Amino acid sequence: MNSQSVKTYLLNLQTQIVQALGTLETQPFITDEWQRAEGGGGLSRLIEGGTFLERGAVLFSHVLGSKLPPTAAANRPELAGRPWEAMGVSLVLHPRNPFAPTVHMNVRCFMAKAVSKDETDAWWFGGGMDLTPYYGFAEDAVHFHKTNQDALNTIDSSYYPKFKTWCDDYFYLKHRQEARGIGGIFFDDFHQQNFDHAFNLMQAVGNAFIPAYLPIASKRNATTYTEAHRDWQAIRRGRYVEFNLVFDRGTLFGLQSGGRTESILASLPPIVQWRYRYEPEAGSAEAQLLSDFLPARDWLSFDA
Amino acid sequence: MNSQSVKTYLLNLQTQIVQALGTLETQPFITDEWQRAEGGGGLSRLIEGGTFLERGAVLFSHVLGSKLPPTAAANRPELAGRPWEAMGVSLVLHPRNPFAPTVHMNVRCFMAKAVSKDETDAWWFGGGMDLTPYYGFAEDAVHFHKTNQDALNTIDSSYYPKFKTWCDDYFYLKHRQEARGIGGIFFDDFHQQNFDHAFNLMQAVGNAFIPAYLPIASKRNATTYTEAHRDWQAIRRGRYVEFNLVFDRGTLFGLQSGGRTESILASLPPIVQWRYRYEPEAGSAEAQLLSDFLPARDWLSFDA
Repeated sequence: MNSQSVKTYLLNLQTQIVQALGTLETQPFITDEWQRAEGGGGLSRLIEGGTFLERGAVLFSHVLGSKLPPTAAANRPELAGRPWEAMGVSLVLHPRNPFAPTVHMNVRCFMAKAVSKDETDAWWFGGGMDLTPYYGFAEDAVHFHKTNQDALNTIDSSYYPKFKTWCDDYFYLKHRQEARGIGGIFFDDFHQQNFDHAFNLMQAVGNAFIPAYLPIASKRNATTYTEAHRDWQAIRRGRYVEFNLVFDRGTLFGLQSGGRTESILASLPPIVQWRYRYEPEAGSAEAQLLSDFLPARDWLSFDA
Repeated sequence: MNSQSVKTYLLNLQTQIVQALGTLETQPFITDEWQRAEGGGGLSRLIEGGTFLERGAVLFSHVLGSKLPPTAAANRPELAGRPWEAMGVSLVLHPRNPFAPTVHMNVRCFMAKAVSKDETDAWWFGGGMDLTPYYGFAEDAVHFHKTNQDALNTIDSSYYPKFKTWCDDYFYLKHRQEARGIGGIFFDDFHQQNFDHAFNLMQAVGNAFIPAYLPIASKRNATTYTEAHRDWQAIRRGRYVEFNLVFDRGTLFGLQSGGRTESILASLPPIVQWRYRYEPEAGSAEAQLLSDFLPARDWLSFDA
C-alpha cells in the first residue's frame, strides 16, 4: 500500500486529461486549489463557457483525517478510529453541442492504516465512467463500451460484464424508470487479490477515459445544431440533475458530511430546463434516444 | 372529521387561486386530471411559457388506500393497516420577471378512520407558504409575513411566531448555509384541539395565499429587466432545485414511494443555471439579497 504512488498517478491523470481536452477546447481551464481544515485539500480544474465545453470539471482531491468516524466505516466497524485518507479524480464534462454526449469518470482510493501490530492496512478502490448522450449513435455506444472492455480485459476478463451491469444498476432513475445514459462501467469497494492488482485496475480505468471519450466528442462536436436540439439537451440535463441530487451516493454523502459544495455540485449542467410531461415526437431522434439507447443492452453484441 | 368538506374546500381553493392569477396571466392554465391505480387521483392546473408565469402548477390531489403501510405511519404505528386518505393543494409559481418572487404554498390533510369501536378517527393537517425572491424588497417581505400573521391570528395568536420559525428551519439549505428565501409559515402534523379548529387553521392559510402573494407579484411583474437579471434568477433557481431534490421531505417521499413524478417535479423551475463559485458584485442588489434578505429575521419588527 503506497499512498504517494496513487497520488502521483491521480495528479498525472488529471493533467493528461485536461491536456487532451485541449485538443478540442480552445479556452483555458481555470485552476482552483483548496485546503480542508481537517486535513488535505484539492486541485480543481474547471471550465465554463468554453467553445467545446459549456461546463466541465476535472477534480483531484485528497482528504485525510486522524480518526475515521464510525459513520464513515459503517461496512467495516473495525476501522473506526484509524487514521485514514481518501483520494480520487472525478470529472463531469457537459459539451455545448447537443450531439456531443455528457460524460462522467471517477477513480478513487480509500486507505486506513494499521495502528497496531494486530491490524493490517485496509484499502479499497472504486471507479468507472458512463456516457450520457442527448442523441444516440450506436457506433459511439459500441466504441465507449469496447474501449472499457479492452481496458478491463488487461486486468481480468471477468470484470467488464460485472462492472457493466453494476453501472446499469447504479445510474438508474427509479422515479423515471429510466437509465441516466448508455452506461459504461462502475465498481466500488474493490479489494480483491492485492493492492497492486487493485491499483492496476484503477489505472486501467483512468487511462481508458481519453480513448473512450475523446474520439466521440471530437466527431460529434462538429455537428450543426439548432435551438430545438439545445432545448432537448437542456431538458435531458434535468434528468442528470435529478439523478445526481436524488440518487448519487457520492453527491449526497458529500453534501451531508460537510464536503466542499462547489466541488460536489460542479457536476451539475450549466443550463437546464424542466417541462411538464414533455415527450418527443414519435419516431424522432429524440424519441429514439429513449426507446433504443437508454434501456440497458449489451452494446458489444450490437449488430449495426 | 369530514373528508368531503375538506375536499370541497380544497377544490374551491384551487379554482379561486387559478382565477386570481388570471388577473396577471393572459395565457390559460392547462388542466390535467389523473387517476391513481391504488385509489384516488388528482386535478392539476399548470402553465408553462405564460406572460406572467414562466412555469406554474396549482395541484389538487386526493389519494386513498385501504391499508396504511407501516412505513407511512412511522410516527403512529397504531394506525398501520387502517383505511386512510390524504388530500391537499400544492402550488409553486415561477414568474418570468426576475423581480417577481417565486412562491410555494401547500395545505394538506391526512385521515385514518377508526375501524373498531376501541379506536378513534385519526387526522392531522399541515401547510404553509414561503416566498423566494431573486431581488429583495423589504416592503414585500413585511407584507407577506404580515398577511400570514393576520391570517393565523384569526385562529390563535401563538401560531405565527411558531410557524414562522418552523418555516425558517425547514426551508434551509444546509450545504449552502443559506435560506431558500425570506420564509413565511410552515406547520405539519397539526392535530391540536379538534378537527374543526385544525380545519379552520388550514383554511386560514389557504385563504391568505392570494392576499399575501398577488399584490407583490402584481407590483414587481411590471419592472423592466435585462438578461443579467435573468441570469441571476436562473442561478438562484438552481438553489430551489437543490432544496427540493436534496432536502424537501415531501418531494423525496413522493419520488421514493412511487408518487406521480411529473406532479411532484412540477415544482422545479423552467430554466436553471449552475455556475462555479458564482458571487455577485459587492454592494449590488444581488449581493443584498444574500446579506440582507436570506438570513432569517423578524420581518414584522422591520423598520424601513
